[in-house]
Amino acid sequence: MREEFQADLTEVSRLLVTMAESVRAALRKATTALLTADLKAAESVIQRDADVDEIHLQVEAKVADTIARQAPVAVDLRRVITALHISSDLERMGDLAEHVAKTAARRHPSPAVPAELRPVFKQMAEVADQMAEKITAVLADPDPVRAGELEKDDDAIDDLERELFRIMLADDWPYGAETAIDGALLGRFYERFADHAVNIAEHTIYLVTGQNS
Amino acid sequence: MREEFQADLTEVSRLLVTMAESVRAALRKATTALLTADLKAAESVIQRDADVDEIHLQVEAKVADTIARQAPVAVDLRRVITALHISSDLERMGDLAEHVAKTAARRHPSPAVPAELRPVFKQMAEVADQMAEKITAVLADPDPVRAGELEKDDDAIDDLERELFRIMLADDWPYGAETAIDGALLGRFYERFADHAVNIAEHTIYLVTGQNS
Repeated sequence: MREEFQADLTEVSRLLVTMAESVRAALRKATTALLTADLKAAESVIQRDADVDEIHLQVEAKVADTIARQAPVAVDLRRVITALHISSDLERMGDLAEHVAKTAARRHPSPAVPAELRPVFKQMAEVADQMAEKITAVLADPDPVRAGELEKDDDAIDDLERELFRIMLADDWPYGAETAIDGALLGRFYERFADHAVNIAEHTIYLVTGQNS
Repeated sequence: MREEFQADLTEVSRLLVTMAESVRAALRKATTALLTADLKAAESVIQRDADVDEIHLQVEAKVADTIARQAPVAVDLRRVITALHISSDLERMGDLAEHVAKTAARRHPSPAVPAELRPVFKQMAEVADQMAEKITAVLADPDPVRAGELEKDDDAIDDLERELFRIMLADDWPYGAETAIDGALLGRFYERFADHAVNIAEHTIYLVTGQNS
């Protein structure tokens, strides 16, 4: 029974790793769409978000099946329930990548982001990508040190978001309200992506080891 | 066993109703803070968000306890797992009310929202409040017809958000980027609040009846 339960958890983790890889790829492609006004890339992200939603349903089904067959209690039960939270966070990260892609598509063929903001979005996207990479790694092989790094990455994202606002709120900001609104919402999409990544890092150590990080 | 399980579900629903009442009160007060630059109201919302987070933890504990004691399977198991999703949605609605309050507090003593935008925010808040009221009612006493109304309410919120953007993007918009950014982010907070309410309505019918609405 114990071995079966571990095998179930491993299968759940495998599904979560696939989701994490997918949302990472989605945000990378959405960022390309955003920074190079690439409509095909944007459309591909929008189309493929359904794949992430599908795996999310698979995780829910697998967790329900595991609880029903193994009747885990105490720490074991909390571990499988944690997988549901991770899956919800990943599903939402996929939505946020899709929001970035949709913004790029809506403005096409114009770029959604003016040249002045591109460096800060490039940096936000890089940090967010590293966070998604770390989550994928930690889900496959839990490492509290690596999971702990996400907090620092999240601080970097928050600093970059402040920098974004500083640029848009400067007296010499040459663009109007529309570009500022897009910039603020896009900044929030990356920031929320990072927040969910931090949640997942905290949950993951618990899922895989039953210990709080 | 069956009666005990029903009693457990009733207790979970009771906790969720308390959460729903709290996030409804929080958004009402946050809206007052926003529209009348009332710092005390804003601070009260920010302070009391911890109460919602606390009930969220109680729901998680109660669900884990129910699964461990009753070992529900199939539909029954999915029903208790659904309670976790509802609780997560409610917890996030509390965060969004807090974001509205924080925006009001940050701009105090200036109003965060200029006179031109106040009517549309007032309407968004009214619809969101009705949605929170319906959720509270449906959690206490499931009614698929009432739950179904939330979809229409959500369309009204989306229309209002479009109206908000129309005002801010008009050629004669007299305010700068900062006010537009605040307006866009605030619009998004109300819209996300409404989205979570729709999720909850869909989940609730399932939680209480085991049937999809």
